[in-house]
Amino acid sequence: MGDRPQLAHLEHLGDATKFSQQIHALIPKCSLLENFSPAEVRLLAHFMDVYRAKPGVEVIREGDGGDFMLMIVEGKVEVLKRDRWNTPQLLAVVEAGRTLGEMSMIDGEARFATCVAAETALIAVLDREALARIIVEQPLLGAKILMELVLMLSQRLRATSQRLLGLLDEQSQRTVNAL
Amino acid sequence: MGDRPQLAHLEHLGDATKFSQQIHALIPKCSLLENFSPAEVRLLAHFMDVYRAKPGVEVIREGDGGDFMLMIVEGKVEVLKRDRWNTPQLLAVVEAGRTLGEMSMIDGEARFATCVAAETALIAVLDREALARIIVEQPLLGAKILMELVLMLSQRLRATSQRLLGLLDEQSQRTVNAL
Repeated sequence: MGDRPQLAHLEHLGDATKFSQQIHALIPKCSLLENFSPAEVRLLAHFMDVYRAKPGVEVIREGDGGDFMLMIVEGKVEVLKRDRWNTPQLLAVVEAGRTLGEMSMIDGEARFATCVAAETALIAVLDREALARIIVEQPLLGAKILMELVLMLSQRLRATSQRLLGLLDEQSQRTVNAL
Repeated sequence: MGDRPQLAHLEHLGDATKFSQQIHALIPKCSLLENFSPAEVRLLAHFMDVYRAKPGVEVIREGDGGDFMLMIVEGKVEVLKRDRWNTPQLLAVVEAGRTLGEMSMIDGEARFATCVAAETALIAVLDREALARIIVEQPLLGAKILMELVLMLSQRLRATSQRLLGLLDEQSQRTVNAL
């Protein structure tokens, strides 16, 4: 662990075990951890690495392949996506407890957006290989993580689909009005 | 199993074990099963129930709570969602191999759309309680199912987000053009 070329520009603080109390304190703000016990957080921390990112530093770059997700342990991160003119647009500013990059961790496809530390940030990283080890070595913890990921993705998909259908409805309304 | 009030109007054909060959044949068309071995399909079938739905019969109703997903084993199913005028709009016609209702199985929230058999259909049902039993009794199979669900949801979320951003881009373009 810790030899991730995509994170080589960050300060590597070692495995997350010594941050497990801080990670545990994130539970109320973190969907991934919402049903975790302190013991499960400690177990999970064992499989994660912590990095420090200075303000303005990219931690995930849109379009890159990627095999890890990250949890913001401290600090704020901006999420940006390039528009059709290739100009980065701010999608969100996210805070401690938020997880990012889950989709690429699972499917390895290109990162959907860029994430930049808005202030000095501590991030805990879980990669696909560590998740695979959790599933084999701690299958109930593995199932719990996967179940939480399914829940989070379901909720985001519901919200996104609802927004999409709302816009499509508006468009068809505009078409009707234009007739 | 088999005592699901929401499916009481369908013909219950018993557990899916005797359909496991037919389910196995769906692998090339079924994202959920794409990495399953024949032995894993048999194991999974043991936890599912099969029902027959006549043409025109609803198998999932938009807005209902729900704790099961289904896999179309045979036949075609229409997916409909009510628009702002409460008129059902056809979103898709889906075929054998397609799974439906995964989100509500996991999060228990309201069904996003209605699913109606377009021709006589066989559906295999997996409910939340059976998934919980799989995770405890067959943790590796449980992790595999959850991993495939995460993958499917990721792909749908990427596609939906892309469409949403495309529409938002178009809108901002229209606003610019209208200035």
